[in-house]
Amino acid sequence: MRIKLIIEYDGTNYAGWQRQVNGTGIQQVIEDALFKLTGEKTTVIGAGRTDAGVHALAQVAHFDTRSTVPPDKFSFALNTMLPPDIRIKASLQAEDGFHARFDAKGKCYIYRIYNGRHSSPLLRLTHAHVPLPLDVDAMNGAARLFVGRHDFASFTTADRRRGSTVRNIFACDASGAGEEITVTVEGDGFLYNMVRIIAGTLIEVGLGKRDAESIKKALETRDRTLAGVTAPANGLTLKEVYY
Amino acid sequence: MRIKLIIEYDGTNYAGWQRQVNGTGIQQVIEDALFKLTGEKTTVIGAGRTDAGVHALAQVAHFDTRSTVPPDKFSFALNTMLPPDIRIKASLQAEDGFHARFDAKGKCYIYRIYNGRHSSPLLRLTHAHVPLPLDVDAMNGAARLFVGRHDFASFTTADRRRGSTVRNIFACDASGAGEEITVTVEGDGFLYNMVRIIAGTLIEVGLGKRDAESIKKALETRDRTLAGVTAPANGLTLKEVYY
Repeated sequence: MRIKLIIEYDGTNYAGWQRQVNGTGIQQVIEDALFKLTGEKTTVIGAGRTDAGVHALAQVAHFDTRSTVPPDKFSFALNTMLPPDIRIKASLQAEDGFHARFDAKGKCYIYRIYNGRHSSPLLRLTHAHVPLPLDVDAMNGAARLFVGRHDFASFTTADRRRGSTVRNIFACDASGAGEEITVTVEGDGFLYNMVRIIAGTLIEVGLGKRDAESIKKALETRDRTLAGVTAPANGLTLKEVYY
Repeated sequence: MRIKLIIEYDGTNYAGWQRQVNGTGIQQVIEDALFKLTGEKTTVIGAGRTDAGVHALAQVAHFDTRSTVPPDKFSFALNTMLPPDIRIKASLQAEDGFHARFDAKGKCYIYRIYNGRHSSPLLRLTHAHVPLPLDVDAMNGAARLFVGRHDFASFTTADRRRGSTVRNIFACDASGAGEEITVTVEGDGFLYNMVRIIAGTLIEVGLGKRDAESIKKALETRDRTLAGVTAPANGLTLKEVYY
């Protein structure tokens, strides 16, 4: 039977979704808990391979099992074995042939910023700190330039580029009240570090260090050096996966 | 010179504001940083002695110094020495004779609840988890019964009762959208564990385990056993101190 999981995690203490040489992957922690529960060695396939320090509100994953645990009870059983920074929010029987990664039609990421002068202890795990005042309206105006089908070659780490770098962005905006600002990006897929580079570029717009026009140029030239810096991992959260 | 500090902290890893036998107090961490900065051994007096695991968005404190550091620069200098879970949000020269605790006219606490079936990794440090559905309207209706001048003897840990147990509550409400619920309590002062017992009692109302009438009775009888349980420390945050 194929089981679908919806997973929330605080990525602070992990090397990312996937196992890395120098750290534990969230995937592996869940596989270990499944082994304890079912005695089966199984692979848990996630929709998005989030990086070290990146969080998820609703990562989607699947695995196969011969266990007799009822599908909706995996969440409760696994949560008793998982550390408190990983929780299965729901488990259910997947349709035949469902694949968490290949069937995903799109994803929504949020990039959260704390824009106070001093960093925030209570938001430090989930919000990147930008101490200088950001112009959210300017960020939001520039964010719209990412919407549509574009070649995002400038918005990925160059040595990780492979295959097509064209992606379709459904929505991109920046909003906020007071010291908390959220950049939301929805698209059919994302290149390595793409959301963090989009966020880093919009932060530069918000600081007045670049104008919206520079984003058009960065997209057109396929030149990584014309896009902004890669914003820190801790601000990024995978919010939703669309099927 | 007397300096006033506004302090935000994540209380998860501390024994509370004050030093305890079995753990580090936030006060002490700030005093140690001040000693590194100024070479002076000084006492930092906080407005509210928050418990182990309790957070603050804007604790207020004062200390005396002969240092030549400009008052508004203490925040920046101390923040370079403090751990990331404690931050001085502002520092300024206090008026002569200002006392962070004795001059406080009131305080506002928030008690935050995550009301999803499974606990939330991303909110686990700041929100208490209540897995069964809460009736927020019922909680809000009952919360109003705490407003006014009452004897809160039933709403404190019995062996810590000393002096008057009468307090004036300016405002008390429960609000929330979806899975995040916030109880807000403003008053002229609070007994030991008082906000956590108010929150625990309102959670019992929200679960349908008690009615609003039972709160009147708990207040009238001064009997701790008639109030609700003490809700967990992690949900509590000192939001503001009024002068």
